[in-house]
Amino acid sequence: MDKFKVTFYPDNKSIEVERGKTILSAAISAGVYINSSCGGDGVCGRCKVILKKGQVVTHPTGRISLEERSRGFHLACLTTIQSDLEVEIPPESRLDLELRLKGLYSESEEIEAPVSVLGDEIFVHSPLATKLYLELPEPNLEDKISDLERLYRQIRRIQDIPIMQTGLTNIRRLGELLRSADWKVTVTLGKRNGTTEIVLIESCDTSQKNLGLCFDIGTTTISGQLVDLNTKQVLGTKATYNKQASFGSDVITRIIYAQEEDGLEKLHHAVIDGMNQMIQELIQEHNIDLNDVNCVLCAGNTTMVHLLLRVEPTYIRREPYVPTANFVPTIRASEAGIKINPRGLLSCVPGVSSYVGGDVTAGVLSCGLHHQDDLSILIDIGTNGEIVLGNKDFLVACSASAGPAFEGSGVGCGMRASKGAIQKVTIEPKNYAVKYNTIGEIKPRGICGSGYIDMIPEMLRAGLIDKSGKFKTIKDKRIRESELGREFIVAFKDESEATSDIVITEADIENIKRAKAAIYAACAILVKHMGLEFSQINKIFVAGGFGTYLDIANAISIGLLPDLDKTKFIFVGNSSLAGARSILLSYEAMKEASEIAKKMTYFELSVEPKYMDEYTAALFFPHTDLSKFPSLSNKK
Amino acid sequence: MDKFKVTFYPDNKSIEVERGKTILSAAISAGVYINSSCGGDGVCGRCKVILKKGQVVTHPTGRISLEERSRGFHLACLTTIQSDLEVEIPPESRLDLELRLKGLYSESEEIEAPVSVLGDEIFVHSPLATKLYLELPEPNLEDKISDLERLYRQIRRIQDIPIMQTGLTNIRRLGELLRSADWKVTVTLGKRNGTTEIVLIESCDTSQKNLGLCFDIGTTTISGQLVDLNTKQVLGTKATYNKQASFGSDVITRIIYAQEEDGLEKLHHAVIDGMNQMIQELIQEHNIDLNDVNCVLCAGNTTMVHLLLRVEPTYIRREPYVPTANFVPTIRASEAGIKINPRGLLSCVPGVSSYVGGDVTAGVLSCGLHHQDDLSILIDIGTNGEIVLGNKDFLVACSASAGPAFEGSGVGCGMRASKGAIQKVTIEPKNYAVKYNTIGEIKPRGICGSGYIDMIPEMLRAGLIDKSGKFKTIKDKRIRESELGREFIVAFKDESEATSDIVITEADIENIKRAKAAIYAACAILVKHMGLEFSQINKIFVAGGFGTYLDIANAISIGLLPDLDKTKFIFVGNSSLAGARSILLSYEAMKEASEIAKKMTYFELSVEPKYMDEYTAALFFPHTDLSKFPSLSNKK
Repeated sequence: MDKFKVTFYPDNKSIEVERGKTILSAAISAGVYINSSCGGDGVCGRCKVILKKGQVVTHPTGRISLEERSRGFHLACLTTIQSDLEVEIPPESRLDLELRLKGLYSESEEIEAPVSVLGDEIFVHSPLATKLYLELPEPNLEDKISDLERLYRQIRRIQDIPIMQTGLTNIRRLGELLRSADWKVTVTLGKRNGTTEIVLIESCDTSQKNLGLCFDIGTTTISGQLVDLNTKQVLGTKATYNKQASFGSDVITRIIYAQEEDGLEKLHHAVIDGMNQMIQELIQEHNIDLNDVNCVLCAGNTTMVHLLLRVEPTYIRREPYVPTANFVPTIRASEAGIKINPRGLLSCVPGVSSYVGGDVTAGVLSCGLHHQDDLSILIDIGTNGEIVLGNKDFLVACSASAGPAFEGSGVGCGMRASKGAIQKVTIEPKNYAVKYNTIGEIKPRGICGSGYIDMIPEMLRAGLIDKSGKFKTIKDKRIRESELGREFIVAFKDESEATSDIVITEADIENIKRAKAAIYAACAILVKHMGLEFSQINKIFVAGGFGTYLDIANAISIGLLPDLDKTKFIFVGNSSLAGARSILLSYEAMKEASEIAKKMTYFELSVEPKYMDEYTAALFFPHTDLSKFPSLSNKK
Repeated sequence: MDKFKVTFYPDNKSIEVERGKTILSAAISAGVYINSSCGGDGVCGRCKVILKKGQVVTHPTGRISLEERSRGFHLACLTTIQSDLEVEIPPESRLDLELRLKGLYSESEEIEAPVSVLGDEIFVHSPLATKLYLELPEPNLEDKISDLERLYRQIRRIQDIPIMQTGLTNIRRLGELLRSADWKVTVTLGKRNGTTEIVLIESCDTSQKNLGLCFDIGTTTISGQLVDLNTKQVLGTKATYNKQASFGSDVITRIIYAQEEDGLEKLHHAVIDGMNQMIQELIQEHNIDLNDVNCVLCAGNTTMVHLLLRVEPTYIRREPYVPTANFVPTIRASEAGIKINPRGLLSCVPGVSSYVGGDVTAGVLSCGLHHQDDLSILIDIGTNGEIVLGNKDFLVACSASAGPAFEGSGVGCGMRASKGAIQKVTIEPKNYAVKYNTIGEIKPRGICGSGYIDMIPEMLRAGLIDKSGKFKTIKDKRIRESELGREFIVAFKDESEATSDIVITEADIENIKRAKAAIYAACAILVKHMGLEFSQINKIFVAGGFGTYLDIANAISIGLLPDLDKTKFIFVGNSSLAGARSILLSYEAMKEASEIAKKMTYFELSVEPKYMDEYTAALFFPHTDLSKFPSLSNKK
């Protein structure tokens, strides 16, 4: 089989691939992650690349304009390699959207740490990994028990651990280690599937150095925290795009991709690459030795957890939608390719079903729904929108495919809720002057979810768009026609840190409308399914990667959230990450999470015939049936 | 560094080694195992090789006669490699003694299976690995729990297992496996450190195929059994020499060797090579698929278990004589290099101390000492002679370095108790005519331990030797002088299957005298230490690799065993292997073994000043103090 060298610019990364492979597949293998919402089907048109040199075979596509074609543009997924190639990835095709906006590249970014609704103190402090400093009595002719039993005995003098395990690796080192350390050692104890494992034995007192990581592995965004397991202090919180987005923007496209040759392997590497990079950055910034990071706790939707562990996700999307595992045993992190201490542990928050994963369990734990007497709803706004309804007696959940718009992906100038993101917006109806506020109060780089949620009601109020989201015919310097339709300039290039004007397009508005409709319809159907009405709900927890700010009134006014008294809403940010941190820090929280996962039932929207009707009715700002939003009709 | 090729004949095995390495070290690296009692110190003279071609540097040694020197003989341990070499290993230097005796080579040999004193039925049948055939209900929209929880649920419908573990390897295969197997699978459950692990998941009903192995890993001999874990049937029992004998005949020499560069690695490979070869032979002979062998249970002295697991044994021989572990966790057999099913388990019988290992625990379990109201002694005659004294209230053990004579090693025509071994002997005092009986009733190949135990009283009675073991001056065709002193011909070459006459030499008798003195003295000191007398002992269990036959009267008459009523003696054969089998077949037996190991105390002979006196006094047939053997003085 012929092999050709393909070089990608501006990364200057090369790879050898066989004739006939697509440029998209070659890019992924080279570690160059390209946008692709459709997972390589030639539909979304987001994987445009510029061919600089070499022969290819390509398919005709309406996604490349004549002008682009003349400049060498091709869709990476439809173009196969027939010789050595040189390929340029234009900024708009890069998965790392910041590159386009900021003209520079960052693997992951510091974000605001989510705060636990219930506080960090409600669970007993008993982290996934604990360290114990031991001064063993030296053996003598009267006390001759073996090294390993001596260690066990000393541990049991401090803690009551009936079943203790140790690996051969530790035993092989033990004799020499104990003696060279003069019988003063620190053991790292890990909680592993109902037993305690001596994960590590180190000489001297290293008990002060005990770090752990928690992750929320989302379809679009991976958020992670570095936590001091002794003090519970959060040292750093970061977010990065899930590089799996190169294989499609939703879980279904990725499950399909996993069935291709090496597909599962590539998806697995994409997620762990991102996590490992984030871990590297976190430990370097905080001057931590990787060997002092002893455990990782992950919350993710069921597909993300399968891909993290390189477990075939195929059956998740086949009726009757059964995953391989909802409760995954604790393993060594290295088995999944996660680079912390080579003997460190990896634990995942238990999930409920194929479409309600451990991220939702963690969210419920974090909000305390399962303790409430009154009815609550948790609405987690992500690429999958998950809704949980319940109280201390029952929990029922469903999942709606919303798309990544609220995470700033799949929308023109969207970005994640990190520095420079426009998060608050007002528009002066008279002259369309825009006032905005950015995260970190620096020049704007793009718009995050909460910015879009503000933008639409402001555009409606200013008369820029109608209630279906279409632009009205208005002449203004901020309104212009582009190849992709009309757009409104939120921030001009010269007032921003972006490389071009920051705009919102009609297509963006359409995307947001679909996302909010999917989530609202899911809420409405779930409440109805339980024989309830919105008015009976006492609290609404709103979760999602919005940073610290979300305007609830605006979210209601676009019809994303139900029209209830504002005081009932509690904005909780990334509740999955907050819950994951609680579990990392407390085995009691892990047990509670298991109970939540066992107790929660799953309601499948796709088998509910009224869901599509609800969804269609919600494709309007705020809704086609205004009686559902009485506070808005009163205003008028 | 120069590298030279060394080829060993008749094996025709080659290896590349650096200049200056010894021929002994090169041979071991090439997998050619040579006799060496002293572990390469140039003392024992057992590693003679014939240099056929090439340059060497050697040290002068009295162990090579002038005649031998002229024929190219060198001590492999004192001779370093200076060019490419061709080296012949003469039969008498081969570790596999049968080669010399039979003219053919066998890795291991079928031996008689030891019988449990207490019978195989006393423990509940609950083997280390069990198989369960499961017909899982297929998932549907009403029953959508994940594949893994479905499996757990079905197992728990049959067995009460609160803590269950599974590895990532099984989870990765699970989804596809369950569906391709139409939800009919067999799980192999292994008992692992207080929890149950799903070791293996196979499609269809393979529950009938569940094999296990038990091993007694002795310093000189490795015995193993292949057992059907469902029916408890022993399919085959084999023994082979422990190839570690190339590094010295006793544990101390090997512990010292382990400190050399790659020493531990080589010792580890020597023992597992022997075990793996035996496993291969057993499964081939019994037409078993290696993947159906799910677990291995090993009993061995503490040093042997350390070397098996590649754990540094150094501290075993340094005061205060503390091993790394007496209770070794159950691991995957593949971690120790044992080739059974790649996910199969390896468990070791817990030991007591540095010089009383799991083999002794298994022996006590097998004889039931710990259940008796009356006092009993277990005397395990091996390269280390271990003595246990006790009853249901206490157990105390000691260990004496006896040497491998009773295992047929280190004695001229010695062999293990396998086919063709002379095991019973009488000598006609008038004409020195010899009547013997061989194992398997075939032509003799050599003499095993019980043969030597018969031989010496017969030679005494016939007046061939005196009570110190020296030959008297008698002229007979059966008595001759050799380079190594006088010898008595037991079987002439033409009546045997050996390649030369089968003889007993004065050196052999000296070896046996030292071995029996070490064991008798240990018994005597241990009984005295506990403030007891031999007459208070109710039962004496005699264990060792003697096949099915041992003449107790003769063993007393040479002063190996104390002079007590014959009815008090119970010959139990390889009690360690019998105990290991019980543990393989019953977790209850494993728990009982743990209790025994915890209860048993160790008495260190080397710190007991009277031990050397007792030993010296016993260097006589039967003893210098005849009052200790009243039944023999009466006879006279």
